[in-house]
Amino acid sequence: MRTLALSHWLAVLAMAVLTATAQAQPKAPLPSWNVGATKQAIIRFVTDTTSGGSPNFVPEEQRIAVFDSDGTLWAEQPAYFQLLFAIDRIRQLAAGHPDWSTQQPYSAVVDQDLKTLLASGDKDLLYLLAATHAGMTVDEFEQTVLQWLADARNARFKRPYTDLVYQPMLELVDYLRDNGFKVFIVSSDGVEFMRPFAEFLYGIPPNQVVGSSFMTQMQLRGGKPTLIILPKVDFVEDGPGLPVAIQRFIGRRPILAFGNADADRQLLEWTAANSGPTLVGLIHHTDSAREWAYDRTSPVGRLDQALNEANARGWIVVDMKKDWSRVFPPQNLAD
Amino acid sequence: MRTLALSHWLAVLAMAVLTATAQAQPKAPLPSWNVGATKQAIIRFVTDTTSGGSPNFVPEEQRIAVFDSDGTLWAEQPAYFQLLFAIDRIRQLAAGHPDWSTQQPYSAVVDQDLKTLLASGDKDLLYLLAATHAGMTVDEFEQTVLQWLADARNARFKRPYTDLVYQPMLELVDYLRDNGFKVFIVSSDGVEFMRPFAEFLYGIPPNQVVGSSFMTQMQLRGGKPTLIILPKVDFVEDGPGLPVAIQRFIGRRPILAFGNADADRQLLEWTAANSGPTLVGLIHHTDSAREWAYDRTSPVGRLDQALNEANARGWIVVDMKKDWSRVFPPQNLAD
Repeated sequence: MRTLALSHWLAVLAMAVLTATAQAQPKAPLPSWNVGATKQAIIRFVTDTTSGGSPNFVPEEQRIAVFDSDGTLWAEQPAYFQLLFAIDRIRQLAAGHPDWSTQQPYSAVVDQDLKTLLASGDKDLLYLLAATHAGMTVDEFEQTVLQWLADARNARFKRPYTDLVYQPMLELVDYLRDNGFKVFIVSSDGVEFMRPFAEFLYGIPPNQVVGSSFMTQMQLRGGKPTLIILPKVDFVEDGPGLPVAIQRFIGRRPILAFGNADADRQLLEWTAANSGPTLVGLIHHTDSAREWAYDRTSPVGRLDQALNEANARGWIVVDMKKDWSRVFPPQNLAD
Repeated sequence: MRTLALSHWLAVLAMAVLTATAQAQPKAPLPSWNVGATKQAIIRFVTDTTSGGSPNFVPEEQRIAVFDSDGTLWAEQPAYFQLLFAIDRIRQLAAGHPDWSTQQPYSAVVDQDLKTLLASGDKDLLYLLAATHAGMTVDEFEQTVLQWLADARNARFKRPYTDLVYQPMLELVDYLRDNGFKVFIVSSDGVEFMRPFAEFLYGIPPNQVVGSSFMTQMQLRGGKPTLIILPKVDFVEDGPGLPVAIQRFIGRRPILAFGNADADRQLLEWTAANSGPTLVGLIHHTDSAREWAYDRTSPVGRLDQALNEANARGWIVVDMKKDWSRVFPPQNLAD
């Protein structure tokens, strides 16, 4: 065994300390957010609630952040992506069901009649999805979602739907997590649709994805216990159903919430009514060049009353065009 | 400004490294588990699934561990503690309801007729609890649970119920968490009963407590949104309902599960049927001196078929008397 001088070991140790320090050094947060009041408000809130000694310090276990999915974390035009998935999926299955061509709502799906389907509501489609997939295992259904995500392309950008995630929101989710927040998606979408991509896209594990879900039943298949989809959905209703779902699945009031539409109002109100410090924000789609511009009269993601409320109550309103230096991740879509 | 020699700084750095190393040094795991096959099997499984390069390595996000509550993490005699809470709570409220004294199941509760109540099932009592608390906010209900935990005493040990948690299981939960497992409670008990103590007792946050729950509705009270308990329960059924609940709330199959009764069988079978490496265990109550001894014919926590299955399939069977050097935390109860 060679003997080394103490000074050598000290130098090695010093290098280890310096490396560890360099690794722990945080990057400047939110690089795709333009300098301005919005970015400043977010950083101030996070700093204020996570710095020891701050009068607004919030213990780590209470740092619950909730995000709506469609229009908040990823795009939602020309229709909620779950609706587009349901249409594609039911059209695939229609080949084996010629009777569907004359039955509503199947015929609207088969004809890709988006207007009728948007009017009928996402909920009906989720029900239809369960009905048409009854008897399938939950693992098999997950495969259909993953296959669709791999194959389907957005009509305008000609890119997979998972490419239409918002880079600034990815950075916000990361920034919150780096500061001890636990981040949840809360949406009326089906969890069976959201969970297969939430982990690879956002790093949000399945148990932190809250939404509607298929009823299932345990059955033995080939001697192995399996969960079979029943033709029923346990719905999380938009609006007043969101706080109910938060209580049921999360069990604690959030201190931070982001949404983008009137349907998210109660998510934001529920968070704002928490007794301690809170941050509540709306994503306002203002950028028709890089994404889409819509609000008060849009059939998808209508933002009217919630915008009035945000202005009246001083909630953050993220102006996509002004506040975001890029919309989609650079590897997906150059702005 | 004073100038210090490099060697001085290196010594300071070296001290910092040594301190950090000392803090990171893991304690020997599971100190209250006696040396033997059971302890060895647990440590072998955790080492095997978490060591880089191991053929059985499981990525951190898939390290899901689920534990039944009653009889697995804490005691359950002379009856499930939630049942004892419900009885005490309904008796408190009975003063304002003289009509209850002649109505079943209220009169059985008022008379503390445990035999009738155990036969009627925990489920009916949970329903009764919701019915008698309808109109209360979820925060108010949480306070009644916390107050009961502070006031009530176990008949045999004359200690608060939270003192009757199993020290070896606390160590197991910690050990798993230290090794990147995410630990959940999965029980048919009400989450509103379990969540108020799960975090301080086990370090398990509310969103990792899976069970039945009261239906709630958002209402404005004094202009503030509040969740009001409705006289309805969304039940998680024991048995086949447990895998359904795991899918709905966790969204991923566990790789480790512990239970103690026939009612937990499907929880264990569901875990054992996972495709990768799994560890499945039963707590066998064999120690009448330090805790209670019961199994095949017990009205509470009956363990018969699951014990046969464990023996046939080589699941771990924890013999409380033999495998645990102590049962309760030393500060709570000297064994």
